[in-house]
Amino acid sequence: MMKKAVVLLSGGLDSATVLYYARRRGYRTYCLIFDYGQRHRKEIRRAVRLAVRSRSPYRTVRFSLPWGGSALLNKRTKLPQNRAIIQTVIPSTYVPARNIIFLSFAASYAEAIGANAVFIGANAIDYSGYPDCRPEFYQALQKTFQKGLKTGSEGKAIKVHAPFIRKTKGQIIKTGLALKVPYNLTWSCYQGGRKPCGKCDSCLLRRKGFAEAGATDPALKVKGRIKRSKD
Amino acid sequence: MMKKAVVLLSGGLDSATVLYYARRRGYRTYCLIFDYGQRHRKEIRRAVRLAVRSRSPYRTVRFSLPWGGSALLNKRTKLPQNRAIIQTVIPSTYVPARNIIFLSFAASYAEAIGANAVFIGANAIDYSGYPDCRPEFYQALQKTFQKGLKTGSEGKAIKVHAPFIRKTKGQIIKTGLALKVPYNLTWSCYQGGRKPCGKCDSCLLRRKGFAEAGATDPALKVKGRIKRSKD
Repeated sequence: MMKKAVVLLSGGLDSATVLYYARRRGYRTYCLIFDYGQRHRKEIRRAVRLAVRSRSPYRTVRFSLPWGGSALLNKRTKLPQNRAIIQTVIPSTYVPARNIIFLSFAASYAEAIGANAVFIGANAIDYSGYPDCRPEFYQALQKTFQKGLKTGSEGKAIKVHAPFIRKTKGQIIKTGLALKVPYNLTWSCYQGGRKPCGKCDSCLLRRKGFAEAGATDPALKVKGRIKRSKD
Repeated sequence: MMKKAVVLLSGGLDSATVLYYARRRGYRTYCLIFDYGQRHRKEIRRAVRLAVRSRSPYRTVRFSLPWGGSALLNKRTKLPQNRAIIQTVIPSTYVPARNIIFLSFAASYAEAIGANAVFIGANAIDYSGYPDCRPEFYQALQKTFQKGLKTGSEGKAIKVHAPFIRKTKGQIIKTGLALKVPYNLTWSCYQGGRKPCGKCDSCLLRRKGFAEAGATDPALKVKGRIKRSKD
C-alpha cells in the first residue's frame, strides 16, 4: 500500500512545488485547500486545478476569522508594495495563527484517511517576517501532534514536512522545474486580477525567484505575445 | 486596562465553569463558540446563552471537517452508551485534532484582540481516553504558540490555561457552584433532545459529577416537578 500524505495547497508557487515534491518522494497525495475569506478566490480555483492536474484527491475547508486582524483578509486595507523583499518586521499580511490553523486541519484530515505525513511549502528565507514560517515552529508543532493526536498516542505520529523551510525562492523554483511543476497554473499576486499586478510583495518575490533560477515565468507568457518570428 | 482572555465555550459543564473561573481571576472574557457540524445545535445555543449571561462578547466560528472521522459528527453512528466511565481506549466520539483546531482559532482571536490568555475546560481525569485532553499536549501547544505566533516572537506569548486538567468532574462542579455558574443553562447530552437522554457517556459522567459534588443538577429540575410540599 502506498504511503499517504496531506499537502496544504494554496495555488501559489511553494505549495505547488511541495505537492510534486511529495509525489516524487513516493507519497499518494491528498490536497487540502482553504477558503477562509482571502481577498480573491482566484488562488482557490488555481489550487483546485493543481490538485486535478496532479491527479490528487482534494478537500476544501471553509472557515472565517470573524476578528480579521490581517490586511490579507480586508479588501479595504492597502497591501504593501515595492518594499525591500527581505522582511525584518512582521508584515501586515500576517494572518494571526494561520499556519497553525491550516496544519491543525491537515492533521485532522491525515488522521481520518490514515496518512502519516503532512507537507507544507513554508519557507523562512525570503519571508522571515512570518513567525509561523520558522523552523522552530515546525519542531514545536511536531511535538504537539505527537502529544495531542490519537496517532501520536499510538506511536504513529504524523510527521510535518516543510522541505523548503531553508530554501530561497530561486532554489524552490529550480526544484519545481526539475519536477515539471505546471507553474503556469500557479498564482502568487495578492490581487485577483486577470493578470498579476507585478507590484505587490508577492509578485516581486516571484519575479526575483524566477530570475535567480534563470528561468522565465510561464504565468507571464500571454497568448500571442511570444512570437515565432525566428522559425 | 483589564487583562483579556479568550474562553473556548461549548455549552457544556466544563467550559461554562472555566468561563466563570477566568472572570474570577480578573480577566475580561471573550467567548469563542464553534459550529463544526456537531450532531445537534442545542449546545451552540446554550453556549451563546452562557456568553450573554456572563456579559462576555462572543464570536462564532463555522467550519466543517469534510472527512468526518468521528461518531460525534455522524448522525448515523450509534453513540457509546452505558459503558464504564473511565476510558482506557480512545472513544469513537474522538474528533481528529479537534482541540488543536479549537485552540488555534483561539490563538488567532486572542492575537487579534490583544488577549494574552486562552482558557479551555479540558480535563484528563474522567476522560483520559482523549489524547488532546492530556497535560503534555498543552505544554507542547504552549511552546508552539511561543514559536509560531507574532505575540510569541515579540516575547508576549499567549498562555494556554487548562485549570481543570487534573480535576475530576465532581471537583469542577464544586468549583463552579462556588462561582455561581448557571448550570441550568449548560448542556452535556450527546443527543439534542428536549431533555437529556440520561444514557450516553456524557450524561452518565455529568450525573456522577453532581453526585460527587453532593449537589442536584439544576438542568434536571423540570418545572412543576419540584413540589413545595414542605413549606
